[in-house]
Amino acid sequence: MANFRIDKLVIFGVGLIGGSFALALREADAVKHVVGVGRNRDNLERALELKVIDEIASDIKRAVSDADFILLATPVGQMAELMRTIAPHVSARAMITDAGSTKHDVVQLARESLQKCLPRFVPAHPIAGAETSGVAAARADLYRGKNVVITPLAETDAPAIDTVCAAWRACGAKLVRMKADEHDRIFAAVSHLPHVLAYALVNMLAQRWNADQLFDFAAGGFRDFTRIAGSSPEMWRDICVANREALARELRHYQAEIERVTVMIEAGQADQLQALFAAAREARSAWSAGLTDQTGSAESIP
Amino acid sequence: MANFRIDKLVIFGVGLIGGSFALALREADAVKHVVGVGRNRDNLERALELKVIDEIASDIKRAVSDADFILLATPVGQMAELMRTIAPHVSARAMITDAGSTKHDVVQLARESLQKCLPRFVPAHPIAGAETSGVAAARADLYRGKNVVITPLAETDAPAIDTVCAAWRACGAKLVRMKADEHDRIFAAVSHLPHVLAYALVNMLAQRWNADQLFDFAAGGFRDFTRIAGSSPEMWRDICVANREALARELRHYQAEIERVTVMIEAGQADQLQALFAAAREARSAWSAGLTDQTGSAESIP
Repeated sequence: MANFRIDKLVIFGVGLIGGSFALALREADAVKHVVGVGRNRDNLERALELKVIDEIASDIKRAVSDADFILLATPVGQMAELMRTIAPHVSARAMITDAGSTKHDVVQLARESLQKCLPRFVPAHPIAGAETSGVAAARADLYRGKNVVITPLAETDAPAIDTVCAAWRACGAKLVRMKADEHDRIFAAVSHLPHVLAYALVNMLAQRWNADQLFDFAAGGFRDFTRIAGSSPEMWRDICVANREALARELRHYQAEIERVTVMIEAGQADQLQALFAAAREARSAWSAGLTDQTGSAESIP
Repeated sequence: MANFRIDKLVIFGVGLIGGSFALALREADAVKHVVGVGRNRDNLERALELKVIDEIASDIKRAVSDADFILLATPVGQMAELMRTIAPHVSARAMITDAGSTKHDVVQLARESLQKCLPRFVPAHPIAGAETSGVAAARADLYRGKNVVITPLAETDAPAIDTVCAAWRACGAKLVRMKADEHDRIFAAVSHLPHVLAYALVNMLAQRWNADQLFDFAAGGFRDFTRIAGSSPEMWRDICVANREALARELRHYQAEIERVTVMIEAGQADQLQALFAAAREARSAWSAGLTDQTGSAESIP
């Protein structure tokens, strides 16, 4: 890792994700100069103060014209315009990655908008985050030991993949490569579905005439189950729309599973319920203890 | 509180719930002698060592014959037999309470089995717990600041209610009185429903051919959402069967809510999704910040 170094890094969106990327690379001595771009001037000033970035870009086009590495860490909703704006100006040596939670849509946007930069774009999804946001929440160890999924296109240059992997690896992340559609199917099940389920439960109860009373008696289990319903509505709107096909399929599967359990409960099928609960508990314990196969069937990149 | 004192307390089931009750009363200097009864001899020995109890009952009938206060903290499944066994022998001055998660079924069992003790039985549900179990997990502050719901019967004596409330209050709890059916409806929504939803999600994913891969990419949101799927299958089987009517009704409501969200996602209704997510986040933040009315519409007992 010692010989990997980015001379000029440009980050679009210097929040938790973008800021932590900069801090991690700094700590690894893997970056020389960091330029921040964003819509919120206060946040950028704070990023300067915190030494997350060295410079606030005064001109986007000039900033990318001599960049070596570009991270797109804005909401996916801003990505198309951003790609179109920078594409004609990006230096021919710059590698580009992103940090979006969905990948099929980002790949599609890149094909439409990144033009000549497309072969040097490596879509990525770091599986790390927190309830906090903004640059003040950024930390050098956010990606340490975490998975980063990359979903290169058929057109992506091999050196671009190597460089982008080296950068995430310098942040302490483990890299896993898969197809964009496979990524989106997996995250529909383990991330997007539970988020929608938590939002739906809170929303259902909040609309009851006795909502206050219900919330009065909600305890620790409810708190943990619904923690993700505190996530950004804008971000999750975008994720739901971007990944609607796979997510709707998971919701249909889940409805069928709930129907099955409801029937067991209505019929008072104690043994079946206990078996189902025990199987779930066992699967979760195994997962939680890290006993499940850590590489899975995805192609991990050593 | 200083003048409230139990001379002889008998606890059936000296685990987290029963043990913490004893420790809390001890700390408040509100109990003189604690007798433990249970099926697991090792656990009772441990309770003695930890000074949670002063004595292991050698004869149940004799133990209850001069008891002043009896806590039934066994699984609900054992309650009927336990009530029938002790009823003919319980001292005429003993007050009885329980700690079951469902109340309609406990009330029904009491009517069938507690015989002459019925007027001195005050069903209760302390809204406190932890993932841990067994007496080693017991702590004097488990009930501090927590709600304890009591659901007295029409036949319950007023002095019994006062004494049982005084005991829970000595543990630091806040008391709320409601009808057993109302209790079961509320907890179907805020506790039983999320438990079933979490079990169902883990179970659904665990059965997939690519379960290992899915669990590999499950992160913090999934961990919190499914934490309650690590709960005791036996306990939750009993709760689901005992409260099946109210719980099945909640599951049907939730299915309808999920159907509504699925349709929004399939149609790509970004604005509606954002509004729903924002409403849920707002309701949860208000709850989480303790801004919702803390007494609700239930009758709280000052």
